[in-house]
Amino acid sequence: MNKDFLTTEHFSTAELKGLIDHAVALKSDRLATKPLSGKSIALVFFNPSLRTRASMQIGIYELGGNAVILEPGGTSWTLEHREGVVMDGNKTEHLNEFVRVLERYVSAIGVRTFAALEDWETERTDPILKAFARYASIPIINLESAMHHPCQSMADMMTIREHLGTQKKKVLLTWAWHPKPLPMAVPNSFALAAAQFGHDLRIAHPKGYELDDALLGQIQSQAAANGGSVEFTNDPDEAFNGIEVVYAKSFGSKNFYGDPEGEIRERALYRDKWIVDDAKMSKTADARFMHCLPVRRNVIVTDSVIDSPNSIVVDEAENRLHIQKAIMTELIK
Amino acid sequence: MNKDFLTTEHFSTAELKGLIDHAVALKSDRLATKPLSGKSIALVFFNPSLRTRASMQIGIYELGGNAVILEPGGTSWTLEHREGVVMDGNKTEHLNEFVRVLERYVSAIGVRTFAALEDWETERTDPILKAFARYASIPIINLESAMHHPCQSMADMMTIREHLGTQKKKVLLTWAWHPKPLPMAVPNSFALAAAQFGHDLRIAHPKGYELDDALLGQIQSQAAANGGSVEFTNDPDEAFNGIEVVYAKSFGSKNFYGDPEGEIRERALYRDKWIVDDAKMSKTADARFMHCLPVRRNVIVTDSVIDSPNSIVVDEAENRLHIQKAIMTELIK
Amino acid sequence: MNKDFLTTEHFSTAELKGLIDHAVALKSDRLATKPLSGKSIALVFFNPSLRTRASMQIGIYELGGNAVILEPGGTSWTLEHREGVVMDGNKTEHLNEFVRVLERYVSAIGVRTFAALEDWETERTDPILKAFARYASIPIINLESAMHHPCQSMADMMTIREHLGTQKKKVLLTWAWHPKPLPMAVPNSFALAAAQFGHDLRIAHPKGYELDDALLGQIQSQAAANGGSVEFTNDPDEAFNGIEVVYAKSFGSKNFYGDPEGEIRERALYRDKWIVDDAKMSKTADARFMHCLPVRRNVIVTDSVIDSPNSIVVDEAENRLHIQKAIMTELIK
Repeated sequence: MNKDFLTTEHFSTAELKGLIDHAVALKSDRLATKPLSGKSIALVFFNPSLRTRASMQIGIYELGGNAVILEPGGTSWTLEHREGVVMDGNKTEHLNEFVRVLERYVSAIGVRTFAALEDWETERTDPILKAFARYASIPIINLESAMHHPCQSMADMMTIREHLGTQKKKVLLTWAWHPKPLPMAVPNSFALAAAQFGHDLRIAHPKGYELDDALLGQIQSQAAANGGSVEFTNDPDEAFNGIEVVYAKSFGSKNFYGDPEGEIRERALYRDKWIVDDAKMSKTADARFMHCLPVRRNVIVTDSVIDSPNSIVVDEAENRLHIQKAIMTELIK
Repeated sequence: MNKDFLTTEHFSTAELKGLIDHAVALKSDRLATKPLSGKSIALVFFNPSLRTRASMQIGIYELGGNAVILEPGGTSWTLEHREGVVMDGNKTEHLNEFVRVLERYVSAIGVRTFAALEDWETERTDPILKAFARYASIPIINLESAMHHPCQSMADMMTIREHLGTQKKKVLLTWAWHPKPLPMAVPNSFALAAAQFGHDLRIAHPKGYELDDALLGQIQSQAAANGGSVEFTNDPDEAFNGIEVVYAKSFGSKNFYGDPEGEIRERALYRDKWIVDDAKMSKTADARFMHCLPVRRNVIVTDSVIDSPNSIVVDEAENRLHIQKAIMTELIK
Repeated sequence: MNKDFLTTEHFSTAELKGLIDHAVALKSDRLATKPLSGKSIALVFFNPSLRTRASMQIGIYELGGNAVILEPGGTSWTLEHREGVVMDGNKTEHLNEFVRVLERYVSAIGVRTFAALEDWETERTDPILKAFARYASIPIINLESAMHHPCQSMADMMTIREHLGTQKKKVLLTWAWHPKPLPMAVPNSFALAAAQFGHDLRIAHPKGYELDDALLGQIQSQAAANGGSVEFTNDPDEAFNGIEVVYAKSFGSKNFYGDPEGEIRERALYRDKWIVDDAKMSKTADARFMHCLPVRRNVIVTDSVIDSPNSIVVDEAENRLHIQKAIMTELIK
């Protein structure tokens, strides 16, 4: 198995399904094994967190280990990740030393580093996450990077399987309005994992909100290889027809990286049309509603939908704990 | 017993005395039992903390459990607690999801959420704390809310019993000057607990610094039911006559919520008259001096009083640890 | 042995060598003993940290204990350390109560409190660290104060011994340019420990960057007592001749405390001359390169030197973990 957990692309569908089997077992007996006993795991947060911070810290505890939380720029130093730089600016430490020192202390490093939404061509390559993986000989676990959030998408796949079984489903990834542009890591990883698990995936967003071209290529080849399909629409109403799983997520347009004001003007056009409400849900095949959380109520989704019995957002968040414990158990030896 | 520990009002005097018995036992053998073994407890801090953060984290460790600290707006997201709101402002997550997700991970949630001193009619109802209790099926422990600090007042009652025995005492709650207005949670909870434990309570403050009317009603009925009494004075010198326990605390006036500048001008009139000094202490019946800490020296109390043998502020702070361990042991099953 | 670990000056060379023996043993079996089982240790950070925070937290875990991190002014209150003050300013708690309460909860307190570089005559006496030691009856461990960083210097001595054996070495402490003035704790403690371990110490810096006079007196008497020597130079090239260990560190001039802009203009004169590069390293006797980290690459040291096989900065950082575990094991009973 791959040393790191950076994106599900690095794992076969069989491996990913095995991780979910493992997570299901851990969910039924949370304190069954202590494979991390005596081990410490660093959790490096460049950005805020609730579910990830809590679920990782608790997962490590339940596996017998010790979580060490570091916040570069907050409780720790600011970090440079580019090679060969003369560090006479505002960065006080290089990732090279940061990672090579940490791995003397800990058995794995979890990293959260959001997109800054400033420079598409750079950020689409996930440079900070990749620098961690390059400098480290121990496992690096992606806790949401500029382009991927594989722990989330694996919890998503586990939750779909729990509620709807192992057969492929008609799954909608739908854009929603949000007052400001957000990173694309969650939709990227959800779409990729849905394709790897062979679901029939529909992706709906306004024109201009297309996902990354190279990623779309991966998604289409994974769908083909795993018996699924991918289709696209810019119509927020037709999108819901016949769907069994609605996955809502707001994200920014790659065309507006570096221009947040332009993005905010652009997206304002779509505010009322893209909210997930009862009218849209009524077009589905009794679909489950999913969102990675945090979610803005009555902006992304109405109270009536998220509070309905078909809403499985809390199960989805709970499964973050179990799948992350499975991932840590497999990777950290 | 009540599911939550929000205010001592929800517990009988017998239950409260039982918690102190339990805390005394835990104090004599801090590592005696591990009822939280394998369990995680979330500590949610909207405000800074020393004693609470350290004593809760250590208490959970000593009981065998795992403390998870979350700081909404700091390391976590900002939280909306009102229902039905269109969340297009600066709050990124709703307490509904925050609490319902957390309870999948943890066995109880401790919450610190101070009064903002902006809107008396709203804040006097403790809306954020109550929202936690409403959304949660697991125990919510109040680590100081807008109106109550029951872990503090229980440590206070335990400390009085340790130093002066179980019989009722003449107890003074006295206001003091502070450069800016502070919340009323500590005086509220101290006065309520003193009445529930049947002490003869005197409350001293300048005119205009009265406690909440409904709370005063509770205090008087509790005093009557438990063999104690309540009296009031606006005279900072007479207040100390014959007293056995002096409990000092600065707090803001409910009449100046939303007007901190007006409050600061008003309270300036009382600065020199209300400090606890040797002259006032000499009028007491060899009273013990208490304060919840943090305390501003030579502002609330002189060095000579807080450094005297009659000062029991450090014992009082220590007992936070033991009473909180007792509360967690009773509530978390 | 001294109650506290504030500076190596309080310990004999035999005691210091014994700590390194102990650390070497712990390094070979990190989970060998649990002397801190059931005990909590407070780590008080007035300043940011990576290595110290992670290595202390992990060391405490590996010894069986519980680390409690407090950040005065961040997650905790702001602290006053002067005695007799009327606390009507911006400090909300006195160190007296802070320390006396904490020691009811924990078995030792680690403290990080950097120099502010504002008032040399005050800061050279390490007033905040000393106030912790004065109020506490439990061990205080210096995690870098205004004038000392003894955990770092002990890790440094351990690293020299690991790589070059127990015999005395020709050791260079060399100043380097940095965009802003930094505290002197690391060079102070390194020079003192090198003298206590009997090395032949050369100290190189531009004119005006002399260490504290009283400290230099200690260093010279320790060198004399332990069979070593101390010499000084202002020439950044001659400094490297025949050296076996290069220890680079930028630090501010005591003559510019309170005048950071003046310091920045002054030090700009030395930027290019004082970087550790291949040309300087080629004059040494195949010297090892050391730095306490964080280090600015191509400012303090070139990539080619820090990435060379002679660079032992990561070993040095790793040894922080082991030596701190030895110090805690010896002090905390």
